[in-house]
Amino acid sequence: MADPRFFTKAKSFTVGEIARMLDCPLPENADDFLVLDDVNPLKDAQPNHLSFLDNVKYKEDFIKTKAGACFVSPQMAKIAPKGLICLISPTPYKFYALAAQAFYPEKKPKNEISPLALIDKTAKLGENAYIAPYVVIGPNVMIGRNAWIDAGTVIQEGVKIGDNCRIGTQTSVSHALIGDYVRLYPGVRVGQDGFGFAIDPKGHVKVPQLGRVIIENHVEIGANTTIDRGAGPDTIIGQGTWIDNLVQIGHNVVIGKGCIIVSQVGISGSCTIDDYVAIGGQAGIAGHLHIGKNAKIGAQSGVINDLAGGGEYIGSPAFPKTQFFRQIAALNRLIKKKKRD
Amino acid sequence: MADPRFFTKAKSFTVGEIARMLDCPLPENADDFLVLDDVNPLKDAQPNHLSFLDNVKYKEDFIKTKAGACFVSPQMAKIAPKGLICLISPTPYKFYALAAQAFYPEKKPKNEISPLALIDKTAKLGENAYIAPYVVIGPNVMIGRNAWIDAGTVIQEGVKIGDNCRIGTQTSVSHALIGDYVRLYPGVRVGQDGFGFAIDPKGHVKVPQLGRVIIENHVEIGANTTIDRGAGPDTIIGQGTWIDNLVQIGHNVVIGKGCIIVSQVGISGSCTIDDYVAIGGQAGIAGHLHIGKNAKIGAQSGVINDLAGGGEYIGSPAFPKTQFFRQIAALNRLIKKKKRD
Amino acid sequence: MADPRFFTKAKSFTVGEIARMLDCPLPENADDFLVLDDVNPLKDAQPNHLSFLDNVKYKEDFIKTKAGACFVSPQMAKIAPKGLICLISPTPYKFYALAAQAFYPEKKPKNEISPLALIDKTAKLGENAYIAPYVVIGPNVMIGRNAWIDAGTVIQEGVKIGDNCRIGTQTSVSHALIGDYVRLYPGVRVGQDGFGFAIDPKGHVKVPQLGRVIIENHVEIGANTTIDRGAGPDTIIGQGTWIDNLVQIGHNVVIGKGCIIVSQVGISGSCTIDDYVAIGGQAGIAGHLHIGKNAKIGAQSGVINDLAGGGEYIGSPAFPKTQFFRQIAALNRLIKKKKRD
Repeated sequence: MADPRFFTKAKSFTVGEIARMLDCPLPENADDFLVLDDVNPLKDAQPNHLSFLDNVKYKEDFIKTKAGACFVSPQMAKIAPKGLICLISPTPYKFYALAAQAFYPEKKPKNEISPLALIDKTAKLGENAYIAPYVVIGPNVMIGRNAWIDAGTVIQEGVKIGDNCRIGTQTSVSHALIGDYVRLYPGVRVGQDGFGFAIDPKGHVKVPQLGRVIIENHVEIGANTTIDRGAGPDTIIGQGTWIDNLVQIGHNVVIGKGCIIVSQVGISGSCTIDDYVAIGGQAGIAGHLHIGKNAKIGAQSGVINDLAGGGEYIGSPAFPKTQFFRQIAALNRLIKKKKRD
Repeated sequence: MADPRFFTKAKSFTVGEIARMLDCPLPENADDFLVLDDVNPLKDAQPNHLSFLDNVKYKEDFIKTKAGACFVSPQMAKIAPKGLICLISPTPYKFYALAAQAFYPEKKPKNEISPLALIDKTAKLGENAYIAPYVVIGPNVMIGRNAWIDAGTVIQEGVKIGDNCRIGTQTSVSHALIGDYVRLYPGVRVGQDGFGFAIDPKGHVKVPQLGRVIIENHVEIGANTTIDRGAGPDTIIGQGTWIDNLVQIGHNVVIGKGCIIVSQVGISGSCTIDDYVAIGGQAGIAGHLHIGKNAKIGAQSGVINDLAGGGEYIGSPAFPKTQFFRQIAALNRLIKKKKRD
Repeated sequence: MADPRFFTKAKSFTVGEIARMLDCPLPENADDFLVLDDVNPLKDAQPNHLSFLDNVKYKEDFIKTKAGACFVSPQMAKIAPKGLICLISPTPYKFYALAAQAFYPEKKPKNEISPLALIDKTAKLGENAYIAPYVVIGPNVMIGRNAWIDAGTVIQEGVKIGDNCRIGTQTSVSHALIGDYVRLYPGVRVGQDGFGFAIDPKGHVKVPQLGRVIIENHVEIGANTTIDRGAGPDTIIGQGTWIDNLVQIGHNVVIGKGCIIVSQVGISGSCTIDDYVAIGGQAGIAGHLHIGKNAKIGAQSGVINDLAGGGEYIGSPAFPKTQFFRQIAALNRLIKKKKRD
């Protein structure tokens, strides 16, 4: 069970409640009233626990699990251990996520504006806000309903934040328009000047950065990630895109919907990333490039050309995935040959 | 026009005012009194806007632009659309930068020391300071004129900061001597201990880090970048060097003047980087190396040897640029050959 | 001498005091009462200074040094300059570290809880605490003796921190159990949600992150590093492991004892890193992998398979070190051959 010092379980559920809540069929002979007290991985689960199988790698754990109920694909359900109630779904991990949210809903602090938060008198806050101590909210800031703003965060002049957002501790936000259900983790930097200057041996000359950062609804941005504002156009993070920790997003970058950007990725200025692109950890994308819809870019890739949508790419410089692994194989043949010579 | 929630235009200018301000010749038949109300990229510019052409890639936009005036090189001016006033310069982007600064000068908050800033009574602050709430300034800190210190920033004991510096929100500075016109973006960490210890299986033994960070005039340091203090010698960032976000600078690193260090670069301890070196994003430099003047190091390079000045290098490990691209070409020939075999 | 604005020397020592303190033999004819006023590198050392030779690279400096005494290996002692007192040790750098700590012990601020720190009434603080201004300590937090918590840091509900810990400025800690003698540098983020969600084109579904971060004794974590809490299992950093700046540690990662993790490394979720592993700067490790004891992973490596203990690996993808450098050599032969063709 999750450590009660940090997590509060809402309640137990019967397997029937879970099945109906998620609109997931219950097998005919299943005990609708079986009580599930917790969620747990297959290996550790007990008869009063709900689990899931999403990755064939964990098949052995599935066969041996003591869990009472389990989200599982139709194919894998066929090899379920006797007595396990299979909650069959094409997306068992998603169903598990939703069930786990029901067991452990996020506990927002009580609505309260700390007397130690400094909120400009021209700022507007929606109802049901929790504003922690040492938060600074500047002039003309507008924040929607159900705001959750953690300690020490600074929201600069004119920023607009929608409803149901959580802004983590010690985050700084300027020059930004942020939608609903957006979450910034601790230490995120949004809206500072991009890296824009005219190179000059007598001293680089700063180009005023006159754009903004637009963050659409349902975006998550990981700890210590930096998102520079546009230089004239805006930097845009599309709806439902998730960004991990320590990522760098340069000025004027436009990211589409539902993208997944893993930790320590760097996206240079003026790139356009279409919808549902996935970028592996530590990959970098050079400036002014276009990445097509659904492209998958492997970890540590170095992208120096536009990439067509739908493809998988890896390497530095990045190539189509099969080509990259053929390059590696060719290299290894070459050194074997050398040894034989 | 830049969003007035975030940017304040100073005023409009006539093209003649701009030309004289920048000492840039106005064509003979140009209307000195044409009013320019804003700056704008070529594509979006209107007859009352000032624009620039710096990159041949945007030639088509130039030919079709509706801008009233445009900074442009002598060569490109020859194909300017009819009626466009060409402000001819060998460095159009620099001239644009200066003009844009005139349209949108940075708006420092009014001089005021927040009653919620905690300033040690032994600290000295020059005239015209803006010190935001929840700033902490330690004993014996000295800060010059026109300081702009954003909310939540912590300046530790003994630090010296020159005139006209801006220190962004939630930045921490210790063990540092900082010049004039320096700018630290939000979340920068200056002066913490370097990664120095004697390896020991019974427990690594910390080596006291007894040096400082010296930051010369006109340096900019990007958000969440970390600069460790020296171990005995100092860590030094030379005049006019610009450092992007999420960069790591190890202890004892000495960086010359006018360098450009792009996001997520890592420079290991005790490296010496000469003047005007440019380092692309995510590149790494191993410890104790010397990089010669004007060297250009490509993105994601892994430098494991000293590099001569003036050259261009890329790859991990880094090679001269032409050699690296020959390696890649050779690899691709190899896999084509294999396919034919 | 270290800048007295930032460092305070405890006192001078005689060479005899140093030798006895470290249980390091003094040569027979050495002057036990030679006064050592400071530590200094070989090159700058004066007759009243203590130095060390650890790296053959600095042999020339050793031969010419004016230092009064020097930690040195038995072999190198043979070529010591006349009059230098050799303090012979198989680990001269470790002995230097200990001596330097004696000259310059870390100066903790006086025990005091700032009236501007906000400490929940249910939190428990051990004796001899220094708590800086604008620190926030949440409900049920427990912190041991001799705590040193710098300005602006936020410790969230339920966190436990052992004795003798230093938590740097503007650090955020949640969902964590931290041992003794742990040090977090400025801007560290511990305990935020890992990057866990079920991918869904209609909107990724968050998987509640129900684990914790466990940090064992004697761990150091560098500036702006991010350590996500577990998703169900815990994220664990083993005793005596040192982590540099800007490192990313994903959820469920388990790191053993005495590891060294250099700046900008990224370790993906659910990896297991055994004891005494060393990982070079900017290396990345893909998810769910196992790295064996004493493995050494080179800078910028991209690890995509389990690695056996004891080996040295480098490259992206990572190979045994000798294989990697053979690959590079083969490539360079290939392009020379092409030139000749």
